[in-house]
Amino acid sequence: MSKIRVGIYGAAGYTAGELMRLLVHHPNAEVVCAQSESQVGKKVTEIHTDLIGDTNLVFSAHLDYQNLDVLFLCKGHGESRVFLAGNPAPDSVKIIDLSNDFRLKADADGFVYGLPELNGPAIPKATMIANPGCFATCIQVGLLPAAQAGIIQSEIHTTGITGSTGAGQSLSPTSHFSWRNQNMSLYKAFTHQHLDEIGESLTQLAGKSHVVNFIPFRGNFTRGIIATSYFDTDASEAEAYALYEAFYKDQPFTHVTNRNPDLKMVVNTNKAVVYLKKEGNKLLAISMIDNLLKGASGQAVQNMNLIFGLEETAGLNLKPTGF
Amino acid sequence: MSKIRVGIYGAAGYTAGELMRLLVHHPNAEVVCAQSESQVGKKVTEIHTDLIGDTNLVFSAHLDYQNLDVLFLCKGHGESRVFLAGNPAPDSVKIIDLSNDFRLKADADGFVYGLPELNGPAIPKATMIANPGCFATCIQVGLLPAAQAGIIQSEIHTTGITGSTGAGQSLSPTSHFSWRNQNMSLYKAFTHQHLDEIGESLTQLAGKSHVVNFIPFRGNFTRGIIATSYFDTDASEAEAYALYEAFYKDQPFTHVTNRNPDLKMVVNTNKAVVYLKKEGNKLLAISMIDNLLKGASGQAVQNMNLIFGLEETAGLNLKPTGF
Amino acid sequence: MSKIRVGIYGAAGYTAGELMRLLVHHPNAEVVCAQSESQVGKKVTEIHTDLIGDTNLVFSAHLDYQNLDVLFLCKGHGESRVFLAGNPAPDSVKIIDLSNDFRLKADADGFVYGLPELNGPAIPKATMIANPGCFATCIQVGLLPAAQAGIIQSEIHTTGITGSTGAGQSLSPTSHFSWRNQNMSLYKAFTHQHLDEIGESLTQLAGKSHVVNFIPFRGNFTRGIIATSYFDTDASEAEAYALYEAFYKDQPFTHVTNRNPDLKMVVNTNKAVVYLKKEGNKLLAISMIDNLLKGASGQAVQNMNLIFGLEETAGLNLKPTGF
Amino acid sequence: MSKIRVGIYGAAGYTAGELMRLLVHHPNAEVVCAQSESQVGKKVTEIHTDLIGDTNLVFSAHLDYQNLDVLFLCKGHGESRVFLAGNPAPDSVKIIDLSNDFRLKADADGFVYGLPELNGPAIPKATMIANPGCFATCIQVGLLPAAQAGIIQSEIHTTGITGSTGAGQSLSPTSHFSWRNQNMSLYKAFTHQHLDEIGESLTQLAGKSHVVNFIPFRGNFTRGIIATSYFDTDASEAEAYALYEAFYKDQPFTHVTNRNPDLKMVVNTNKAVVYLKKEGNKLLAISMIDNLLKGASGQAVQNMNLIFGLEETAGLNLKPTGF
Repeated sequence: MSKIRVGIYGAAGYTAGELMRLLVHHPNAEVVCAQSESQVGKKVTEIHTDLIGDTNLVFSAHLDYQNLDVLFLCKGHGESRVFLAGNPAPDSVKIIDLSNDFRLKADADGFVYGLPELNGPAIPKATMIANPGCFATCIQVGLLPAAQAGIIQSEIHTTGITGSTGAGQSLSPTSHFSWRNQNMSLYKAFTHQHLDEIGESLTQLAGKSHVVNFIPFRGNFTRGIIATSYFDTDASEAEAYALYEAFYKDQPFTHVTNRNPDLKMVVNTNKAVVYLKKEGNKLLAISMIDNLLKGASGQAVQNMNLIFGLEETAGLNLKPTGF
Repeated sequence: MSKIRVGIYGAAGYTAGELMRLLVHHPNAEVVCAQSESQVGKKVTEIHTDLIGDTNLVFSAHLDYQNLDVLFLCKGHGESRVFLAGNPAPDSVKIIDLSNDFRLKADADGFVYGLPELNGPAIPKATMIANPGCFATCIQVGLLPAAQAGIIQSEIHTTGITGSTGAGQSLSPTSHFSWRNQNMSLYKAFTHQHLDEIGESLTQLAGKSHVVNFIPFRGNFTRGIIATSYFDTDASEAEAYALYEAFYKDQPFTHVTNRNPDLKMVVNTNKAVVYLKKEGNKLLAISMIDNLLKGASGQAVQNMNLIFGLEETAGLNLKPTGF
Repeated sequence: MSKIRVGIYGAAGYTAGELMRLLVHHPNAEVVCAQSESQVGKKVTEIHTDLIGDTNLVFSAHLDYQNLDVLFLCKGHGESRVFLAGNPAPDSVKIIDLSNDFRLKADADGFVYGLPELNGPAIPKATMIANPGCFATCIQVGLLPAAQAGIIQSEIHTTGITGSTGAGQSLSPTSHFSWRNQNMSLYKAFTHQHLDEIGESLTQLAGKSHVVNFIPFRGNFTRGIIATSYFDTDASEAEAYALYEAFYKDQPFTHVTNRNPDLKMVVNTNKAVVYLKKEGNKLLAISMIDNLLKGASGQAVQNMNLIFGLEETAGLNLKPTGF
Repeated sequence: MSKIRVGIYGAAGYTAGELMRLLVHHPNAEVVCAQSESQVGKKVTEIHTDLIGDTNLVFSAHLDYQNLDVLFLCKGHGESRVFLAGNPAPDSVKIIDLSNDFRLKADADGFVYGLPELNGPAIPKATMIANPGCFATCIQVGLLPAAQAGIIQSEIHTTGITGSTGAGQSLSPTSHFSWRNQNMSLYKAFTHQHLDEIGESLTQLAGKSHVVNFIPFRGNFTRGIIATSYFDTDASEAEAYALYEAFYKDQPFTHVTNRNPDLKMVVNTNKAVVYLKKEGNKLLAISMIDNLLKGASGQAVQNMNLIFGLEETAGLNLKPTGF
């Protein structure tokens, strides 16, 4: 079988670089076009320098749908919708959008929300995927089984801590090494933009809405998100574990553990790990992912695999960094 | 005036080292005895190597109350009570205990809980001080004004992230650099031992008890604690700010800010910083301290200053690291 | 073809964990026995927790040569020789030793020094491989082409900085997070144990000995080694580049770049990257590897691939962390 | 005595912030004017946020020499000369320049090179001080006694690793947290701009020039510089120690140690620490400073103290971070 021909729009950014790190070794796909206005004419390895020896691709100014089977949109929020309006894709080309332009039902325009743990049956039939947000993925993985089972009996209290790569490669005071190193800070307490997609997914499974109080922190590490969510419930810890294990039993990347985990268990992998603990009437779910993989480009490749009928894990059996 | 003669019991550990970093430059106090069983006979600068050029003190096996005006107890939890039982202090020697042995009212045995923001009037009259815990100090600073004003109308939801020095110098898998670096993890969710002292202080001010749901994280930085606490309240953000500013107006180290802060504002200082934000019916308080200073040795020196009638800030006007 | 059956002696340590991270996804090999005295009976995922979902292996007390095609020795220096003396391997089992027991010619006892860039032709015929040291690999990659070409006309001046995983998982003051974070220090200046194997390799290629003045630093990062080596030479920068590119042209993992590199280009890969710069009469070579991969377990798998006639890159097309 | 009135030109940058961190607690000096074009009208605490509670100063557009006793110039290289040309200082105002505009003898225009270890007698008589560079200070501290004694019998081989604050607050790809964290890289090998001032100082003491081969690294930490320098010598280690101890015996901040040091011994202090080791015919000197203190603003205050006849350590008895 010939390889799936992949195009990337906005190929100089962080999620695009991560896509290429994955796809240079994917057995069934190949990046044939890396579009970037800012870097046009440069070798991909001049920007994503760790790909040395892995690719001779050069950034191009334009994309040609005729040469593509799938297009990943990797530019900033708002730009995907603009691009597609000006460049409508033919039926032959699948679209996987990493921005937040089409994630919410009211904005979806035919896009399927690409969280396999939630929409597993729908994704393989989709032609357009709205790839979930990183915090949204992490928090949902910690809550979806409970929402479906209806055991959430209070508001939800969530804290999440993200690595710096979540903010991409644009330079800013809060991503300046001298500031960020050894530092912690918050942003968008209670108002993070991912709350909407989380809310819709919980409603989809629970049949009713839940309040999520979400405190996001900037962490002084580069990769990964760890989230804690707790709520009142009558369910026991054992019952909760049974629900979560059943919910994720066919998911190749999402693992339930009964040992207190740490973030580096998932760094540089497409895995999600969930741990549960009951104290009094509160059930705590700890969930963690790599924000650039399961939280972005890894999940995007997982969606590509599902759409094209490939092994779901193709190209995603990644060596964790471990350290 | 001759300098206050200071003894330190357990002088080889982290909080003791921090005490000595402070006291070598304190205008009114001098460490005359640094007791350590494990390091007896060695120079202090062999263990606390950054004191090079600042002290010629040698660790000694024994303490002699006759030579001391104040004794800081810097060994592990449980050991202070044992030491004092075997070595009862004369009235002439003040005791400042950095362990958790005497913090709770039921265990106090005459010790005063040494949080100046809470017990300012009582501390100068005390002869024995139970120095608060680090997480306890940070979280209380974020909650005390609200508790006193009676504006906390729900359970309290608290997250705290601590630097590695909170775990001291003993080697453990969770303090191993290869594991801890770039990593995040939780411990003692809902059951941290500092909840008891926090609870007593809230009750002291509020006249009733409050539930604090506390999720403690291990951070991948060395110094500092940042905590977030929120609860339902009818009070407006402006009302809350007014309460907090009034509560802390005479406190030299505790500052209320209306700009979203970051942890390094307080690192290597004895400051506490509090920031407030209202969203919907929730009031969020962000509080932060340096765990070894305002959370331990700095506050211990502050208590010493108060007991001996010195300027409260003596020896505590510290240059922040900034970076 | 059935998979190569792999045994690991000392399977609870860092290099063994890294081997398993590689081999769980290797297309032609499978770990069938993970020996560890200290962890016998525990699941491998209890120790190497990031392998969750990847293996059900349990640590075993013993190894049975009959079930193995290759045995990796992953215990401390000196222990490999003791083990093999007590448990001589049959001809049917290849041995790959990650310690320094058999690296030097005087100690080799039939082992081949397993640096493919140096001993490419000999390795496929070997039955016993002495896997090179991490610093030794990094520094040699920067010097071998120059040694072979005879262009080194002075003593060599080398600095190397290593990540903390080079010191393994044993707890020590210099691997304590509170000490190591934000810190730098030196050890074994001019006397590092890897100088012997470096010296032998240079002599093997140059036909004469070279003096290497080596200053090793402990870095405050977890993975990777960066080394700088310079020496007087009449060769121009262009001539040097030509030599290095020719020397490495058939090496799948070693890349020569003409852009000033950074360490994270190689982290979590089996790559080595070399950069050259001429200033005055000095040629500077910067070389870098991941100490646990090209500097240990990755190179061990590369050697396994060569011995068993597999694709040299099998199981080693790794996604870099990038960040 | 009234306090020395301090002005700062370019007060929003890193070295200026560090100056203010020092001067808010200096017993004999007070910042009366903080000039910044970019931040004019803002509170100093909006930019240097860790000064909360310490100052009410507001950035101003202009400086008035009549209100000043000393002016620190804290803008970029080249800007000090331009400023002074347009705003010549009256005799009553001392100038301390932190840029490299006046460090070299050919450019000095009456400025004295402000390294107290080198020019101790000249500084108190100076009216204009060229404050040394950070790498220059660190490397000179490791070499000056040997140069003066004439024991350097070969080229000098130097490696230095600097924290990120050396690059200031301007945002750049190499100071982006996601790139810099866990990373190492080099810049300006053999050609660093500080080599000129180092060379002049060595010549001043040795009466002849020395070759310094200098490899500068960017470290993944925020504060500090560690440098290693070695050269051939007939002097023994004991002789070298005697020379260094004699050379620095009256220096309050520069300490010679016979224990292998680590960088955090000096972080957040104005200290320099030097360690010596002889191997074969090579003498190795390890030296370390905090780049923002002894390498910039701390040394600037030390120079101010010397000029105004204050205690040399006034305002500079700083608590190290330790961790």
